[in-house]
Amino acid sequence: MKILITGGAGFLGQRLAKRLLEGKELNGKTITELVLLDVTRPSDELLLRDKRVRAEVGDISDRAVLERLIDAETEAIFHLAAIVSGQAEADFDLGMKINLDASRALLEVSRAARHVPRVVFTSSVAVYGGALPDVVKDDTALNPQSSYGTQKAIAELLLSDYSRRGFIDGRVLRLPTISVRPGKPNAAASSFASGIIREPLKGERSICPVDGETRLWLLSPKSAIEALIAGCEIDRTKLGDQRVINLPGLSVSVNEMVEALREVAGDDAVNRIDWQRDEHIEKIVGSWPGMWDVSRAQALGLTGDNNFPDVIRAYLTE
Amino acid sequence: MKILITGGAGFLGQRLAKRLLEGKELNGKTITELVLLDVTRPSDELLLRDKRVRAEVGDISDRAVLERLIDAETEAIFHLAAIVSGQAEADFDLGMKINLDASRALLEVSRAARHVPRVVFTSSVAVYGGALPDVVKDDTALNPQSSYGTQKAIAELLLSDYSRRGFIDGRVLRLPTISVRPGKPNAAASSFASGIIREPLKGERSICPVDGETRLWLLSPKSAIEALIAGCEIDRTKLGDQRVINLPGLSVSVNEMVEALREVAGDDAVNRIDWQRDEHIEKIVGSWPGMWDVSRAQALGLTGDNNFPDVIRAYLTE
Repeated sequence: MKILITGGAGFLGQRLAKRLLEGKELNGKTITELVLLDVTRPSDELLLRDKRVRAEVGDISDRAVLERLIDAETEAIFHLAAIVSGQAEADFDLGMKINLDASRALLEVSRAARHVPRVVFTSSVAVYGGALPDVVKDDTALNPQSSYGTQKAIAELLLSDYSRRGFIDGRVLRLPTISVRPGKPNAAASSFASGIIREPLKGERSICPVDGETRLWLLSPKSAIEALIAGCEIDRTKLGDQRVINLPGLSVSVNEMVEALREVAGDDAVNRIDWQRDEHIEKIVGSWPGMWDVSRAQALGLTGDNNFPDVIRAYLTE
Repeated sequence: MKILITGGAGFLGQRLAKRLLEGKELNGKTITELVLLDVTRPSDELLLRDKRVRAEVGDISDRAVLERLIDAETEAIFHLAAIVSGQAEADFDLGMKINLDASRALLEVSRAARHVPRVVFTSSVAVYGGALPDVVKDDTALNPQSSYGTQKAIAELLLSDYSRRGFIDGRVLRLPTISVRPGKPNAAASSFASGIIREPLKGERSICPVDGETRLWLLSPKSAIEALIAGCEIDRTKLGDQRVINLPGLSVSVNEMVEALREVAGDDAVNRIDWQRDEHIEKIVGSWPGMWDVSRAQALGLTGDNNFPDVIRAYLTE
């Protein structure tokens, strides 16, 4: 089978690709080709050397690019490409173009392929907002307070309707905030959720822009990758009409994250965090839920992490 | 002030136009021009004779048409144009084009006008679906089970985000099913909700395609028009971040509708209803809520009808 990963040169995209190639199969079928579409080439040279990998540099909002890459052999599509929350708030039109128009183009091209490919789409805590219960449930209304959250919510609705009509076999996985991400800070409003751990561990200073009581809903990169694959492999009859799954996360306050850092790396690491509140980031991040009900995800066999100190330890050994 | 009504030649559009012209003002300002955009000319010759009225025949999905009609003097836009539920289910691409793309084009052109016009958008019970509580609340999740409901839900999200960003001053009014509509049956799945009253009153037979226990959430045309105007006139500070309002309706079973018809017009009228269940219509209509919490609408001063027999009596005197 042929697989397409959009955002394939991104952090999650490359990790997913490696994991798929190691596993050799998806949905019980041998992976023959793995197309990584992104605006840049993947940085991982080992990945590029695998004969099954095809790196494509192109604009995902260009339908002709998608038409060239999605064909009757493309049985699974992981649609990870996105403009992150902070950037989509700063540049409304760019967010609409990539998070909405490109997602719709991908659904249309998948529909035109006529063989009902599996499309795994990553959504976000940012679809929620406003007055929220302590634990968000599957029937809690979406009320996004950012353009990013709005665009993700719209793509979710489209994916559900395309699935209901039998155009695609879609699965929306709502990801908790991913932490600890390796690499550098990015334009996501949640960038600090990795930064306040990653930078101090490297001996560098890092700014925490939110109050220590702020509660986050976190998932490690490793668990996110496993969830993406498991989400793709779920039998469609188990999903029924409900194509959206809230993935299990860890409900951790920023103060608890800091204590986990202290447990793993000591006071010196903790002292490298600078507390400088940023109203703009606090407003976006504060609108997200700190926890949601995960009984459906668990019933579908999807799991998360045990505790945040273990997540930090795993990050250090990667 | 200048007002644009899309779907201005439709049943609600023409009634809204007449009511606005009678009132002479909107938001405390004198109405100087009323543009009715639709694919046909309004049928009401009296309306067309009013010097303030300008009938425009054009395609609402053509952005150039909107750019010509929306300018710095357009202070209020009533966006009523839509492909109805049954037709959007039968022709997916047409529904997407009008219910989604044209709505987005209208928001974009309104944004480009730069004076933050009020945009009143009519949404529907069809944004709800799946397992619903007996009374839908403001925080009940949307789970549309039709392409029409999906497209309306998406347009709602866009309108809220455009309002949050200050591009427009939007108001989404979720309308109950309108009954009793005059005229002929249409392609809406809910067409029978007017047909089983209207046709028997004319001495004609009418098919009821759903079970008598089916519960509908109804609003009379007159109350719908008053709600559209009141919704436009609400002070934006009273709306806060929440731009969507579930309008008050009457929760009535089909059997209760039939008894109301008997009360007003006798057994002969009731005997003109043919009960022929249609699985396709039952599935769509059955996914809609039979009642929703209206406390917010009432707090904002929006009202509905008293009882369904009075709605029928009002229809007969129009």
